Amino acid sequence: MNTNAVEPGTGNADIRLARAALTRLMEPSDLPGMALISVAGPVDALAFIRSGAASSAVLEQEMTAVLSETGTGRWQGLAEALGRWRPRLADLAPERDLGIVDRFGGGLLIPEDPQWPPALADLQLAEPIALWLRGRVLRIPEQKRCIAVVGSRDSTSYGDNVTGEIASSLVQRGFTVVSGGAYGIDANAHRGALGAARQDPAYWGAPSAGGTGVPPAEGAVAQPPTLAVMAGGVDRFYPSGNEDLLRTITEQGAVVAEVPPGTNPTRYRFLQRNRLIAALFEVTVVVEARWRSGALNTAHHAEGLSRSVGAVPGSVYSANSAGCHRLLREGAAVCVTDAADIAELAGVAGSNLAIEQEAAPALHDGLGVEDLLLLDALPLRSATSVDKLSVVAGLGTATVLAGLGRLELLGLAQRLANGWKRNS
Amino acid sequence: MNTNAVEPGTGNADIRLARAALTRLMEPSDLPGMALISVAGPVDALAFIRSGAASSAVLEQEMTAVLSETGTGRWQGLAEALGRWRPRLADLAPERDLGIVDRFGGGLLIPEDPQWPPALADLQLAEPIALWLRGRVLRIPEQKRCIAVVGSRDSTSYGDNVTGEIASSLVQRGFTVVSGGAYGIDANAHRGALGAARQDPAYWGAPSAGGTGVPPAEGAVAQPPTLAVMAGGVDRFYPSGNEDLLRTITEQGAVVAEVPPGTNPTRYRFLQRNRLIAALFEVTVVVEARWRSGALNTAHHAEGLSRSVGAVPGSVYSANSAGCHRLLREGAAVCVTDAADIAELAGVAGSNLAIEQEAAPALHDGLGVEDLLLLDALPLRSATSVDKLSVVAGLGTATVLAGLGRLELLGLAQRLANGWKRNS
Repeated sequence: MNTNAVEPGTGNADIRLARAALTRLMEPSDLPGMALISVAGPVDALAFIRSGAASSAVLEQEMTAVLSETGTGRWQGLAEALGRWRPRLADLAPERDLGIVDRFGGGLLIPEDPQWPPALADLQLAEPIALWLRGRVLRIPEQKRCIAVVGSRDSTSYGDNVTGEIASSLVQRGFTVVSGGAYGIDANAHRGALGAARQDPAYWGAPSAGGTGVPPAEGAVAQPPTLAVMAGGVDRFYPSGNEDLLRTITEQGAVVAEVPPGTNPTRYRFLQRNRLIAALFEVTVVVEARWRSGALNTAHHAEGLSRSVGAVPGSVYSANSAGCHRLLREGAAVCVTDAADIAELAGVAGSNLAIEQEAAPALHDGLGVEDLLLLDALPLRSATSVDKLSVVAGLGTATVLAGLGRLELLGLAQRLANGWKRNS
Repeated sequence: MNTNAVEPGTGNADIRLARAALTRLMEPSDLPGMALISVAGPVDALAFIRSGAASSAVLEQEMTAVLSETGTGRWQGLAEALGRWRPRLADLAPERDLGIVDRFGGGLLIPEDPQWPPALADLQLAEPIALWLRGRVLRIPEQKRCIAVVGSRDSTSYGDNVTGEIASSLVQRGFTVVSGGAYGIDANAHRGALGAARQDPAYWGAPSAGGTGVPPAEGAVAQPPTLAVMAGGVDRFYPSGNEDLLRTITEQGAVVAEVPPGTNPTRYRFLQRNRLIAALFEVTVVVEARWRSGALNTAHHAEGLSRSVGAVPGSVYSANSAGCHRLLREGAAVCVTDAADIAELAGVAGSNLAIEQEAAPALHDGLGVEDLLLLDALPLRSATSVDKLSVVAGLGTATVLAGLGRLELLGLAQRLANGWKRNS
């Protein structure tokens, strides 16, 4: 069994073991717990919980200070928190948990690792205790190269199509598509990303990290096409209907969770997972969401963390787009219609951003006002005189003559024996 | 013939006649022309053009000053401008033009009239010389009570439906729906407004102003359901396929133009008409527009004048929504999906704004974090003990007991002989 799952030989074994244990004792964002780890360190925090001490005035004072600093003024005290954590001590088996992910070719990433995503610091006290990973790549790709694509579980075929196309195109542009592994938009985001990777040999060139539990050196693995950030443990392929999909994700990308193996997803953990997605990645795109939706929760987390949020518009008659329109209306999201828009939102300069949409300019677009007036005045069929053109266009005869010369050069006016007409 | 078409007996007859003539000599937004009217007044400006003088150093100097003040530094001088206006002197017949609209039951609204829309002052030097009106109401309703609804001529059935519903609902809320009388979105906006008015007896209670050429006193006429702001003369029902529609608009609302009767719509005049729509009304809504579209021109005018712009989202696959999404993406428009959104944009406090969209909150929405954790931990079928709940939920036993009491009161938890389960 290798408990140094992520970084062997750096002397972090005790810390990794302690953090593995703490992810089982404490729910995500259990702020008094995070305060205890912050003041005592993970190893001593765990030892203190295990000690059976009823409380500690010193620790409680320091924890109160940390909680106050980060805006949590009121809490119920250390004794109450210990009463919350201790019932779970009996189930504690961090070596077993690390062994489980090790057998899956996974590992535990901890803040003491150099690969720990710096973006998570923005969560302040709600920063995860550790991240359980399972898959082909055992690190989180660079924040700027990941796009979270989220949305309703009961998506429409419109939402499914848009999601698949966006995800596929994002992978072709070198992004990792992140989602939550759920039905609907999430599943289509993962599938679109995997489909694009299947067509790109670059995604197959890197050696698999599977089975060793040791992540490859930085840069040795190509950008994974997709990651799933789960509300339950990385050994739980939830929902069961997505089991095959999630297995494929572990083969080509990775599955990530802050809760330990065996943990069920709960409503609370889904909400916390949303905060994790929002924090980890630069851009969150909501493809379809109802007026009230978990995807909006992710979007609001992202907005709160100053991440970029994109929303895909849809029919005003579709209840599944109402949440997206709500985000747009409230200014909480930018309108995005394709991968180019999203890449731009990620701040990645693209050579072909939005250009495809530009229609060819009409020939009369470059004309000055006077030439436009003159062009409008030129008859389509029979020719007319310069004097008549002067009246119709409201231009002096000198201007008309000069303008006719320009329009003739552009092939827009035609000189006939008896005057001028539009050249069509 | 009544040349005092709008306000008889106020001594404005000469000014009205001069302005009627000037709308024929000068194209909309002919800035040197507007500068001449500004420094000489409409009557003397017309007299000077008619005089045949080659130029005037004094006038030119004053006009240059006016043009500079409003940001037009460079112009070609008075002689050139006279060369532009004079060819049209031969066609001048302001009495005839006023007579034409008089017979239609129309009139000419001039800046000297108290009913002149104050919003037009925002156009500065590009303020219209006068407005030709024809219809049931010979004034422009209050800026805040009018919504411009514009969009593509080649609209889709989606755009047509949304437009019709929005226009109808806006009229039911007491707004006037303004558009440009074109095919597609414009026609559907007018039709939706007229349809709603037909079902509302309030729109039939006011006396018709038809035939007199004299507008009724302020307040004597109900808010008209719709106005058409035209690029050509108010006697030209353009496009011809909308002739019946435009006739109905004159019967129940009004047709407005800044160009005199008999004037053809030209590309230049369409662009200028767009500036007029944007300036006259508080809110411009674009329902459907291609990536390059006249409706975007109107929207950009509106944005430049600090008016509110709304854009209706649609499918990302619809080229007819690409212009709307572009406006949303660029932050030039607010996302609007129905009349309630638009009314809110108009700053009209509504009692039922956006409320219909609010789904009933789920019972667990009001729960605190601990009760949510506990609810998630409660088994659905067989009962469980408080100790087990404490482990699963990660809560102390005292918290579990208190939470179970609250959940039981809410009907979410059920106490059985052997423990607790979820009440479903």
